[in-house]
Amino acid sequence: MPSISNKGTQMPSSPIRKLVPYAEDAKKRGTKVFHLNIGQPDIKTPQVALDAVKNNNIKTLSYARSEGSEEYRIKLANYYKKNNIYVSANNIIATTGGSEALLFTIGSITDPGDEIIIPEPFYANYNGFSTASGVKVVPVISKIEDNFALPKIEDFEKLITKKTKAILICNPGNPTGYLYSKEEIEKLKQIVLKHDLFLIADEVYREFTYDGLQHTSIMSLDGLEQNAIVIDSVSKRYSMCGARIGCIVSKNDDFIATAIKFAQARLSPPTYALIASEAALETPQSYFDDVKAEYVERRNTLIKELQKIDGVKVANPKGAFYCVAELPVKDTDDFAQWILEKFNDNNETVMVAPASGFYSTEGEGKNQIRMAYVLNKKDLIRSVEILKEALKQYNS
Amino acid sequence: MPSISNKGTQMPSSPIRKLVPYAEDAKKRGTKVFHLNIGQPDIKTPQVALDAVKNNNIKTLSYARSEGSEEYRIKLANYYKKNNIYVSANNIIATTGGSEALLFTIGSITDPGDEIIIPEPFYANYNGFSTASGVKVVPVISKIEDNFALPKIEDFEKLITKKTKAILICNPGNPTGYLYSKEEIEKLKQIVLKHDLFLIADEVYREFTYDGLQHTSIMSLDGLEQNAIVIDSVSKRYSMCGARIGCIVSKNDDFIATAIKFAQARLSPPTYALIASEAALETPQSYFDDVKAEYVERRNTLIKELQKIDGVKVANPKGAFYCVAELPVKDTDDFAQWILEKFNDNNETVMVAPASGFYSTEGEGKNQIRMAYVLNKKDLIRSVEILKEALKQYNS
Repeated sequence: MPSISNKGTQMPSSPIRKLVPYAEDAKKRGTKVFHLNIGQPDIKTPQVALDAVKNNNIKTLSYARSEGSEEYRIKLANYYKKNNIYVSANNIIATTGGSEALLFTIGSITDPGDEIIIPEPFYANYNGFSTASGVKVVPVISKIEDNFALPKIEDFEKLITKKTKAILICNPGNPTGYLYSKEEIEKLKQIVLKHDLFLIADEVYREFTYDGLQHTSIMSLDGLEQNAIVIDSVSKRYSMCGARIGCIVSKNDDFIATAIKFAQARLSPPTYALIASEAALETPQSYFDDVKAEYVERRNTLIKELQKIDGVKVANPKGAFYCVAELPVKDTDDFAQWILEKFNDNNETVMVAPASGFYSTEGEGKNQIRMAYVLNKKDLIRSVEILKEALKQYNS
Repeated sequence: MPSISNKGTQMPSSPIRKLVPYAEDAKKRGTKVFHLNIGQPDIKTPQVALDAVKNNNIKTLSYARSEGSEEYRIKLANYYKKNNIYVSANNIIATTGGSEALLFTIGSITDPGDEIIIPEPFYANYNGFSTASGVKVVPVISKIEDNFALPKIEDFEKLITKKTKAILICNPGNPTGYLYSKEEIEKLKQIVLKHDLFLIADEVYREFTYDGLQHTSIMSLDGLEQNAIVIDSVSKRYSMCGARIGCIVSKNDDFIATAIKFAQARLSPPTYALIASEAALETPQSYFDDVKAEYVERRNTLIKELQKIDGVKVANPKGAFYCVAELPVKDTDDFAQWILEKFNDNNETVMVAPASGFYSTEGEGKNQIRMAYVLNKKDLIRSVEILKEALKQYNS
């Protein structure tokens, strides 16, 4: 019997998806499950995007251009301009989700054995894409006590080797909700310029910043043109995770020319989703204002309710729609499974993401969970109530 | 300035896409270009698939399940049953096009430095996906004189090393149109069992077999369960290349469990396209009968017309919708560019794919082109007329 590869063996299982069978069993038993485990918002997709697909006149569903049509990329460049990011259509490659943008980026700048430094906790799939490319993730720990701020520059510099090709950040952060300040981005600029590294920023939550704070894109910094690569996606911005359209943005022409070869090999992003994504660019500002107001209220509610529970420590997210909380348990992998498998409160329970999957340092984050505030206020309050009761029973 | 990777440098440029700018320039000059260069049929997508998307009631465009919904995979299993392939939903992973199916497969069974043997000429992107995974394509040459039949078993065995992980075939073949016989598939079975290799078959053209010949899937052979991996796609079957839905089919549970980890890392195939693909399974048989009749007529027309040209040798395709032709020129890369850049016949010209991109052996296929018979009969006749005139001028 032929054997699978070392790479395949090393591919991490999704920290979220491995709990899915337990959630499904709970549902089969008639238990209602509140999903705080995944960044799948309940927010409606802009009508203009949905309508564009419903009103399409396609007769033959053909390939799109590998890098996305020039028209779409020109419109995207206009969207970026409104966000103080001055790029042209030629700086953009449309991809199949932010996922593919990451995969093409890692493929274009690394060879097997190379290293990428990522502040942890980080989006779990960074590990998956790196493993798929034979690349080692080198974590630099950020702490809940510091609200997951950028680790000290010295912490980064200690980790840089000849194999280091890039620093990767998520801003605002998944799973932390942390929003890097302009000063922090400037510090990163200095490191990558000094050591000739790429700076990759996953900015898919760009619109979701709270408390009057502004997002600073790595693309807006002078002098970083050859180093900066932005990963983007329509998934969160327009609540259209299922579209699977993202993009790569960079002013480094060599990098773009290389990434396009990866794009050509897979032929085309999905055509229907491109139609939705192009139309979504016409979404009125009022949509974002409403969504932002909704998320702020949810965040405030979730944090307030969590802080009421004894022994729970919670970071204060300034962006995205996640927060990391420390629970008074030793092993949240076990706890998260237990609340699905063995627990219910009036036939209701919650699903959360154990944070260990967001760390690559063994043993880190074992008492933390990530919660996505993608449910309405009432359900969030109820979810925390369930969590509180579960903690009580679990610990007794 | 940070540098791109060796892998990125080695990624092959698409043999087809590199001519695109010349075609665009020709169009700007007002020249009509007949596209025989790409497997993008003009055939209409089944109405049932188009309607399903137009009539969708999505409010929030959510992620689909990473491996595709159970419902979709059950329906797919039923489709396979009708094609004498007995698999269950658990043997199937829905992917973003056949492209991603290949990428996940290569990622799951190979490590950097491993080798895959592929009869050449082969679909150019096999090289791209292999390079992206750090895998070496080892070609075994099939010949136009033999109509691109399976090379001799000894030719394969000579190439097998400790690094060899799989043999990859495309059946019916792109670019050759060759349909492997049951006997040839049996021979491949013997080799892979003897040497403990995977046998990967890209069967996306399964429906397109002519002259009363039947397709033999590698999944239909007893004893090959642990070795056989089928790559599939809705792109050609339903003329919906832009959907970007494919799948992996295998009875090897370890392999499927591994490939699912790759699928989870990229979250989900595109949701709209899954709706279209699931509906497309209801396509009536009459659609395929009509399409097949159309392709047979086109093939017969194209071959007949090509054979009229002095010095042109053409293989006789029994499946898919491609044929490889040998032209009386030294370098079809130059010729294919020349007919776009310097030539026109009554303001019309043709775009073909130079075959060198379908070979990985340096220098092979230099006098061959691939033509996709994806145009109607009248346009095909005119295309060959243009080609004939172009050859006359080019050679004088």
